[in-house]
Amino acid sequence: MEVLNDEFYMRLALNAAAGAAGQTGVNPMVGCVVVRDGRIVGIGAHLRRGEAHAEVHAIRMAGAEARGATAYVTLEPCSHHGRTPPCCDLLIAEGVARVVVATTDPNPLVAGSGVERLRAQGIEVEVGLLGQESRALNEAFNRFIVTGRPFVTIKTAVTLDGRIATRTGHSKWITGPEAREAVHTLRHRHDAIMVGIGTVLADDPELTTRLSVPGLHPVRVIVDSALRLPPDARVLNGAAPTIVLATRRADPAKAAALRALGAEVIPCGDGARVDLRAGLAALGDRGIGSALVEGGGVLNGALLEAGLADKIMLFYAAKIAGDEAPSAFSLRGPEAMGDAIGLRIAGIERYGDDWCVTAYPPEGESYAADITREAGGEADVHGSH
Amino acid sequence: MEVLNDEFYMRLALNAAAGAAGQTGVNPMVGCVVVRDGRIVGIGAHLRRGEAHAEVHAIRMAGAEARGATAYVTLEPCSHHGRTPPCCDLLIAEGVARVVVATTDPNPLVAGSGVERLRAQGIEVEVGLLGQESRALNEAFNRFIVTGRPFVTIKTAVTLDGRIATRTGHSKWITGPEAREAVHTLRHRHDAIMVGIGTVLADDPELTTRLSVPGLHPVRVIVDSALRLPPDARVLNGAAPTIVLATRRADPAKAAALRALGAEVIPCGDGARVDLRAGLAALGDRGIGSALVEGGGVLNGALLEAGLADKIMLFYAAKIAGDEAPSAFSLRGPEAMGDAIGLRIAGIERYGDDWCVTAYPPEGESYAADITREAGGEADVHGSH
Repeated sequence: MEVLNDEFYMRLALNAAAGAAGQTGVNPMVGCVVVRDGRIVGIGAHLRRGEAHAEVHAIRMAGAEARGATAYVTLEPCSHHGRTPPCCDLLIAEGVARVVVATTDPNPLVAGSGVERLRAQGIEVEVGLLGQESRALNEAFNRFIVTGRPFVTIKTAVTLDGRIATRTGHSKWITGPEAREAVHTLRHRHDAIMVGIGTVLADDPELTTRLSVPGLHPVRVIVDSALRLPPDARVLNGAAPTIVLATRRADPAKAAALRALGAEVIPCGDGARVDLRAGLAALGDRGIGSALVEGGGVLNGALLEAGLADKIMLFYAAKIAGDEAPSAFSLRGPEAMGDAIGLRIAGIERYGDDWCVTAYPPEGESYAADITREAGGEADVHGSH
Repeated sequence: MEVLNDEFYMRLALNAAAGAAGQTGVNPMVGCVVVRDGRIVGIGAHLRRGEAHAEVHAIRMAGAEARGATAYVTLEPCSHHGRTPPCCDLLIAEGVARVVVATTDPNPLVAGSGVERLRAQGIEVEVGLLGQESRALNEAFNRFIVTGRPFVTIKTAVTLDGRIATRTGHSKWITGPEAREAVHTLRHRHDAIMVGIGTVLADDPELTTRLSVPGLHPVRVIVDSALRLPPDARVLNGAAPTIVLATRRADPAKAAALRALGAEVIPCGDGARVDLRAGLAALGDRGIGSALVEGGGVLNGALLEAGLADKIMLFYAAKIAGDEAPSAFSLRGPEAMGDAIGLRIAGIERYGDDWCVTAYPPEGESYAADITREAGGEADVHGSH
């Protein structure tokens, strides 16, 4: 049994927030619970970018009972006019007496100003309750708002010996139905799904969200340096928007053909391979705050080597594929084992007969620098959840 | 990670419902989540008796997006005019296309009529998803609506050898602060708190809810056959309503004195001891749907022997008090161990250094009859949670 205290109400707000995972776009997930005289009088969550914030929904539900109430908000109420009016003003106008905030706005330009505005009006404000949980919930938003790049999660099904297919390339299916259902949930929760051209050529995936309930389809992003994407590929079927990341060296005629089929083709750098950093920045410019990378080993390896992978989810099946089969991460790797890329395991979850290991690579551009930084206490933004 | 499916949304609705535990009185806790095109568009919970039902809050939040949506409701939407208009009519009027219901109304007079009404309008209705969880959440309501009696939970802190005080009667405290905080949360979640006069005379408790956040105070019920309650007892301090259950043999002058102090005195039977069945019925008549029994051993034993205990929560502290100390259950007990009252353990939870064992006695009037009935499949109403 959970005990009734500030944390209880904040957890309820976090749960309401998390329910909307995948449907707020580059906006954060936020929940709000309003309590007066020992009684919940309002519950709200931010459900869609451009629509009402969590506080607005909860305050509306509370009606006149908002006066003198405590509002539990999982993210600092906004103090600026964005797509909606500032929530701080609403809390002030409705006479809320106390506001408990899980965490301040991660945007360094606005962090703390909402709290200040509330306090200036004599409202009691407490900050930090379940802050780590709130930041973990919005790990993608936190990264995006600061870097303008989507948060990149590498997801792959692997055998126990780290292979993503047999030596013949056969890969349907490594994991069981429970793990695959989890992956479709992950798709719903990301703004984009990203694969290398090798995966498209090998498997011709549709890359849509298929669940027992309707899900949202992420934008499909194909990393395709030389524009080898065939016009009849299922990723061009119109079920969701498709973006092709190429290079300036790619054949303009092929780019035009793909554009005629509805795809957006973005040139990323002049090299032989797509400049992934530029590609991710271009995705960020288009309002993509999170990307789920679903293969294959080449793209996985390149992102990890470039320090562009923010999170890794490996769904292990209890199988051995042998050393002639393709690997999950194609990268050169260090000479000494002590120099191997170190991950931090955040959780292990069971899905049917399979197990998903969630891990975080060292953050940022350079491993050495980041391992030092992580030791300095930066890890909480990417805390376990 | 939870997978996105019908169950995910129903769990979210259940979570919203459970947040309001303790504040809906004899009304059930109900949650509702409205989903359209893969997106949550409304979340609601029933927050207070006489106020809007969960569906109303959620549909209001959804606005025009309710049309064609799926509504997940933890309890069958009502089809009758009670304190609010029928929720079925609202769902129909707003054009909801599909309704997933966790469980039908446990009131045999209305069970199923809401579902029928929706289906008659061409709405797709599914019943049963997480039904056991929903019924467990409303175990008190389910009992009350059928019997008119409050659901009775015996709660007691005990030593490992089953004692509720030392041999001198000293009992502050058996368990640690975490367990005591859990008990105050239990108080918030019950309509009444019930003790025997022995506990009042020994400890002079206030029996209010004291948490780090404001809680609701239950009605204080003292089982006091001979009206020994002293006028300066703290349970008469006005912090919450107080009811004294006595017998017709009790001194009318003492009853008048207690009434003058604001207490309600209810005579229950002509015997030497309070007729507990009549007392509970009287509480039910006063809108008390759940009672937390907090002592002492005499009342605990009497309720259990009479088949009036619905649930038992024992907070064990890792201590031994010895066999001269008072026991948690004062009752004669059977001759053969095989005839001892059998409980079904539903859960064991840790609170700091203490452990709470939650168990259910055999249901109803007579143990023998009920054990048979439970084996026949009645147990799900009191499922684990």
